[in-house]
Amino acid sequence: MEYKVKDISLAPKGKLMVEWAEQHMPVLRHIRQKYSEEKPLKGIKIAACMHVTKETAVLMLTLRDAGAEVALSASNPLSTQDPVAAYLATEGISIFAWRGMKEDEYFEAIARAASIGPNITMDDGGDLTVMIHKLAHGITEGIDYRIGKEFLSSDIAKGIYGGTEETTTGVIRLKALEKDGKLLYPVIAVNDSKTKYMFDNRYGTGQSSLDGILRATNILFAGKNVVVAGYGWVGRGIAWRAKGLGARVLVVEPDPIKALEAYYDGFYVSDMSTAAELGDVFITATGNRDVIRTEHFLKMKSGAILANAGHFNVEISVADLEKIAVSKRKINENVEEYLLPNNRRLYLIAEGRLVNLAAAEGHPSEVMDLSFGNQALAVKTLLKKHVSLRPKVYRLPGSIDRKIAYIKLKALGVKIEKLTPEQKKYLESWSS
Amino acid sequence: MEYKVKDISLAPKGKLMVEWAEQHMPVLRHIRQKYSEEKPLKGIKIAACMHVTKETAVLMLTLRDAGAEVALSASNPLSTQDPVAAYLATEGISIFAWRGMKEDEYFEAIARAASIGPNITMDDGGDLTVMIHKLAHGITEGIDYRIGKEFLSSDIAKGIYGGTEETTTGVIRLKALEKDGKLLYPVIAVNDSKTKYMFDNRYGTGQSSLDGILRATNILFAGKNVVVAGYGWVGRGIAWRAKGLGARVLVVEPDPIKALEAYYDGFYVSDMSTAAELGDVFITATGNRDVIRTEHFLKMKSGAILANAGHFNVEISVADLEKIAVSKRKINENVEEYLLPNNRRLYLIAEGRLVNLAAAEGHPSEVMDLSFGNQALAVKTLLKKHVSLRPKVYRLPGSIDRKIAYIKLKALGVKIEKLTPEQKKYLESWSS
Amino acid sequence: MEYKVKDISLAPKGKLMVEWAEQHMPVLRHIRQKYSEEKPLKGIKIAACMHVTKETAVLMLTLRDAGAEVALSASNPLSTQDPVAAYLATEGISIFAWRGMKEDEYFEAIARAASIGPNITMDDGGDLTVMIHKLAHGITEGIDYRIGKEFLSSDIAKGIYGGTEETTTGVIRLKALEKDGKLLYPVIAVNDSKTKYMFDNRYGTGQSSLDGILRATNILFAGKNVVVAGYGWVGRGIAWRAKGLGARVLVVEPDPIKALEAYYDGFYVSDMSTAAELGDVFITATGNRDVIRTEHFLKMKSGAILANAGHFNVEISVADLEKIAVSKRKINENVEEYLLPNNRRLYLIAEGRLVNLAAAEGHPSEVMDLSFGNQALAVKTLLKKHVSLRPKVYRLPGSIDRKIAYIKLKALGVKIEKLTPEQKKYLESWSS
Amino acid sequence: MEYKVKDISLAPKGKLMVEWAEQHMPVLRHIRQKYSEEKPLKGIKIAACMHVTKETAVLMLTLRDAGAEVALSASNPLSTQDPVAAYLATEGISIFAWRGMKEDEYFEAIARAASIGPNITMDDGGDLTVMIHKLAHGITEGIDYRIGKEFLSSDIAKGIYGGTEETTTGVIRLKALEKDGKLLYPVIAVNDSKTKYMFDNRYGTGQSSLDGILRATNILFAGKNVVVAGYGWVGRGIAWRAKGLGARVLVVEPDPIKALEAYYDGFYVSDMSTAAELGDVFITATGNRDVIRTEHFLKMKSGAILANAGHFNVEISVADLEKIAVSKRKINENVEEYLLPNNRRLYLIAEGRLVNLAAAEGHPSEVMDLSFGNQALAVKTLLKKHVSLRPKVYRLPGSIDRKIAYIKLKALGVKIEKLTPEQKKYLESWSS
Repeated sequence: MEYKVKDISLAPKGKLMVEWAEQHMPVLRHIRQKYSEEKPLKGIKIAACMHVTKETAVLMLTLRDAGAEVALSASNPLSTQDPVAAYLATEGISIFAWRGMKEDEYFEAIARAASIGPNITMDDGGDLTVMIHKLAHGITEGIDYRIGKEFLSSDIAKGIYGGTEETTTGVIRLKALEKDGKLLYPVIAVNDSKTKYMFDNRYGTGQSSLDGILRATNILFAGKNVVVAGYGWVGRGIAWRAKGLGARVLVVEPDPIKALEAYYDGFYVSDMSTAAELGDVFITATGNRDVIRTEHFLKMKSGAILANAGHFNVEISVADLEKIAVSKRKINENVEEYLLPNNRRLYLIAEGRLVNLAAAEGHPSEVMDLSFGNQALAVKTLLKKHVSLRPKVYRLPGSIDRKIAYIKLKALGVKIEKLTPEQKKYLESWSS
Repeated sequence: MEYKVKDISLAPKGKLMVEWAEQHMPVLRHIRQKYSEEKPLKGIKIAACMHVTKETAVLMLTLRDAGAEVALSASNPLSTQDPVAAYLATEGISIFAWRGMKEDEYFEAIARAASIGPNITMDDGGDLTVMIHKLAHGITEGIDYRIGKEFLSSDIAKGIYGGTEETTTGVIRLKALEKDGKLLYPVIAVNDSKTKYMFDNRYGTGQSSLDGILRATNILFAGKNVVVAGYGWVGRGIAWRAKGLGARVLVVEPDPIKALEAYYDGFYVSDMSTAAELGDVFITATGNRDVIRTEHFLKMKSGAILANAGHFNVEISVADLEKIAVSKRKINENVEEYLLPNNRRLYLIAEGRLVNLAAAEGHPSEVMDLSFGNQALAVKTLLKKHVSLRPKVYRLPGSIDRKIAYIKLKALGVKIEKLTPEQKKYLESWSS
Repeated sequence: MEYKVKDISLAPKGKLMVEWAEQHMPVLRHIRQKYSEEKPLKGIKIAACMHVTKETAVLMLTLRDAGAEVALSASNPLSTQDPVAAYLATEGISIFAWRGMKEDEYFEAIARAASIGPNITMDDGGDLTVMIHKLAHGITEGIDYRIGKEFLSSDIAKGIYGGTEETTTGVIRLKALEKDGKLLYPVIAVNDSKTKYMFDNRYGTGQSSLDGILRATNILFAGKNVVVAGYGWVGRGIAWRAKGLGARVLVVEPDPIKALEAYYDGFYVSDMSTAAELGDVFITATGNRDVIRTEHFLKMKSGAILANAGHFNVEISVADLEKIAVSKRKINENVEEYLLPNNRRLYLIAEGRLVNLAAAEGHPSEVMDLSFGNQALAVKTLLKKHVSLRPKVYRLPGSIDRKIAYIKLKALGVKIEKLTPEQKKYLESWSS
Repeated sequence: MEYKVKDISLAPKGKLMVEWAEQHMPVLRHIRQKYSEEKPLKGIKIAACMHVTKETAVLMLTLRDAGAEVALSASNPLSTQDPVAAYLATEGISIFAWRGMKEDEYFEAIARAASIGPNITMDDGGDLTVMIHKLAHGITEGIDYRIGKEFLSSDIAKGIYGGTEETTTGVIRLKALEKDGKLLYPVIAVNDSKTKYMFDNRYGTGQSSLDGILRATNILFAGKNVVVAGYGWVGRGIAWRAKGLGARVLVVEPDPIKALEAYYDGFYVSDMSTAAELGDVFITATGNRDVIRTEHFLKMKSGAILANAGHFNVEISVADLEKIAVSKRKINENVEEYLLPNNRRLYLIAEGRLVNLAAAEGHPSEVMDLSFGNQALAVKTLLKKHVSLRPKVYRLPGSIDRKIAYIKLKALGVKIEKLTPEQKKYLESWSS
């Protein structure tokens, strides 16, 4: 077992963090206990590319206890919690992750974790999956291909039964891959489970993105004009919480149905060009690139704060900002000030990387419990069904989704209504 | 052209009401103007069974102006706005509807409207569709069959190209019909358009159900324990608005995912048995029957108020209430007091019929604009496509959904973001 | 005992309404029961000028059962609930009130009720008090003086021990009277009890003003730009509830501290000139006149709705509207359409009179219970203390305020925390 | 000039922090600029005992630029931002403060700052004022007396023109001092300015207390039962924001009026004994002691989190917790786990010290701007008026309060309504 972490002596601190997380993750605890006895993943190799947080650690240990051999790399250069990484290294996980990796180190870590020769891949954003597919299809452009080539054979995909994907962004990439006819094995879009996107994306990113901005800036949300780009699950999570803290929220959204929903939800709705002049804080959550760019930067008020809650650091065009800025300076660990030619100052949080992981601790354990419950059950599903699955993007069946919700409710002590036989029958009849 | 309404002299009042509605319905106004010129429904007969409100009137006049011959009956004995019915009668619509119809009058009205021999049916809850299907399949039980038989031939379905259905309840019945292999023609579930259920059900029923309770009781929502049964689109619309008025809201829901969502949305969640003891106001929105029944009534606090926001008056078991009550008396037009053997008093609004139509004016025009925009486009779609459609329940395509949202936003003066070509391309790529 | 009401045969209906109200008024019920035994108002004459609603009826019956002789007139030409007035007439109250009084009838009713020769006056807005003071000081201008003169002697004030006042508006007038050195007897500003203004004004008017607009127009609040003029207790009650129903709310307020509060509460804040262009619905709650006037009307969008929640119908300048309108027509019982020279249409609710009483049923019983609990205790306080009181505006002591809250909480079954002796001592010490 | 700080080399980092704060403090910036020119505090000595944060630094520099000689000590052992302290030392402020002071170091710092021989004292919680009064009155008990004696003469109070006090807690102590007849000089209760308590306490502590809990625990607020003890300005700030983040909030409050308000605001209300069993998170904001104590700890769920937002660390009885705990361990920098005899685990944040300063960065600059605007103007008021003031607790006049709000609104670009002369006159008249 190999590993590369910042400081192995941080392991005891990491252990406490992971214990704290597990305490708030009853679904995963339930699965871990069951799998520890049944060992359903015995003999299976898993390569995961995920944010190395205390919650991910609980998932990795669950997979290990289920019998799997696990290798893990970070899915973002800034999101690793170093004590957690250290602790995982001491617990038999092949881990390659530290906070502040450079770009080549980041892809090397992915490649080294993948060099385990996985049966299952777990991905968060799609970087591992894309590396494997570039190698397989000989698509040579990009740093990921170049580094992957050093560590991996081009037929690594052949040993893979299937994969899982955690994020909206990753699922968009997978569907593009599928549409191109290039997807090589089945992937379960864990993101598309209701117990994932309706909870983790909305409540989790919703809260933790604001938390990241608070830790970086200590601003008062009450009274601020907060511009939220994107009214998907993440965007609405952010919008509602910002409103709940007393902000006026302005939503920018290209889809007319979502835009109309935001309008009737009581938010202001406009295009970014208009919003740029009004906002005090801008938060992107679109899965798209260049959502805020030169034309917008130049219209903003001095003092405007920019943060990204989407997976990749392309939503706010940092390249544009660097190009037009007269000068820049670091205000604190996670805030950079850009002075524009119009003499206004813009403040970029965490280099435009996803703010909840870079400037705070990522999603709270309570929602990751649901997401990672889905991950664990997705791995088991892939093992059981992979022979009959085609190289497509799948969802977990509704029954698994409901089961996870049910375990969570039980752990929370919440009683739900039961239908009577007459009620079930009534729902199936049409004549009365 | 025949009609039966309460008082034809109310037509001028109805005209003002319909004008007011149309003023708040820019999508339908846009369609009406276009159809008035193009006459796409020329020669077509339409039988509709819908709540006879000022908004429905705008839809009927749109269909008429598009060239159709239109017959209309009420879809609920208590929901007709008599001035509107009178006005429609003066405008060339064959209408059979008045507030306070008896059960046999209600079904006779449906049958008489259907006797036009429709090419298209429009339904709200499914009573018209079920009558036609009972006749066709010779399912003789029920008052609807008996009365339908008097007015209609059993092969009336043969002339029908297709139908539309407005409600969740109706769609549930249609799917049961389809599942039984008995559906005879394609039906477009207008309810399943996003611009319908996400707006009309949530914002429309959400507000108007509380409005109905207010008009019937004038209670203060602030400080009340409001129990909402069902956390579907209607239920959550009610729950959020009740919270917005200062109530503590308790959600009762059998689906674990929805229950968990309500929990994380900050509501109390429990089963009805627990909720029965706590609630000051109970509102059902489930599409199911006997959601509140004897076992619950007996646990309730004296003074508890009961209202139903679902389509049929079976959600609160009025039969149970009548059976256990020691006595009852009418408090005002829409409130009945039941004295229970335990000496507590329960207050039932509008006989358990859907409260927003029976005790208030139904959905505001602003959302019916979206729903009926879908209805109008669904009728046109059926005409164009019915040859290639099978006897199944269909949705309108997403492009129509988005188009309706787009027209509405434009009318509201709301600008939405446009994707750049680079952004569109990015969303379709997987390699970077 | 004399009376003048619309239709005495409505009394049975009024009885049911009053019973319903009393059921939701545990504080007043508690006081009524106590006073029925103790008869603390025996031999006392009370003249009241108040909105004749079912809740006021409970207060009048409480005073009667306490031994007083009671005469009542309406405090607004449009706010009388005729069945309630009829019922009170059958219960031994000298009542002069019907919905839709003309101006001279309105003042005549006040004078006739006052002709009882009261020891105590109860006022809601100050019209009774002002009439008495005009007579006493020989201030001859105004219709109130002219009509008062017909029915009352100029030394009627001499028999008065004291008065009570219910509203913000009335208290403003009383303080102006006191400042002018013209106030002739002590008045208790019931409005200034915390259990009054923080509850009745905020929760009561907040909800019922929106209710009135809904009953008059059936608009959807979600998605509307609602302009609230005044961020006092009434204004903030309206603003928060409108937000809770999904509106975007814009506050117009001259006081910088309240304006800043509205800003940090997440509302938009501006002057009326700016707001006029943006609003879909305008609601005034300022206690001031001409808050919306010609310069604003001319900037408004076509379709804008205007409603007043303040005591007098001077907040929206109906005079200005009448002057600039090209034509007007009645849309329904409570909506009038004004066509402006710029071809836009504005919709005025209830002639600019206080919308919650004119277009809905006024405050819910639950909050009037608190306000009228204060009224009842204020009358008793005046009787006990009037010898030592000077002609000033007084508040009820905090102990009575807290007592009312305490009775209410007990009736609601709410437990509150009790301080330990150590805690009480701690709060009184400074050295540790 | 003397100073004692953690590490003077942190000054450049502190400078950036202070600049960031000042950028968000337009009111203080306005005053600083004006005072820099006018030097109104020339020759005056000020001893301040305040949280040493970046915002306090802006106030201190404002006082310095106004001509005063300034000495500063911390008002809490855990609240000092060390880089800020270092920066102030380099800017000519006599500062004695570092994070993690021991109790005797804390009081020594106060005494050393006071040894400047102040004309004005500025206090936050009253520790400086109490020390001076103990010395003056010879009240020898307490560590503050003992240490004060070492550094200060007993007649230090004689040179003092007056003081200011920032907090609710401090004002309670001052009023007790005044009631005892022992207050020696006038004190302005800055806390009692509306632009202070309605903003800093509500929006500032409201947000930053939740922020502190988030930084310490990373829990998800959505779905949590949050118990808030105290529904004063701080408590309601916390309650509303917790609700805005999706929590169910339960309020514990001994005052019946505030309890009733919380009830109608839609919160659950109960005593602590009941709440103890239900809560997931407990936050105290009462100004009282032992609000949560043994009887409550023993009823709590395992995993419950305890935080204090009140000034002193006596609201949660840490003594009781230490006494009943079987063992304790540190989970992370700001969380301690207590294992109880019933085998449940409770988690105490920041040793029960005020959570927003100990676990986060205290109030955001935006609200401190208002509070410290009041402080600056209070100092100037004391200088101008102290001759005519008696040893009492004073408020700043309403005109200063409104002026601060006005400057803030102007800086925010918010237009407020102006009354016309007719409107002003109307508000002063009673006869029409």
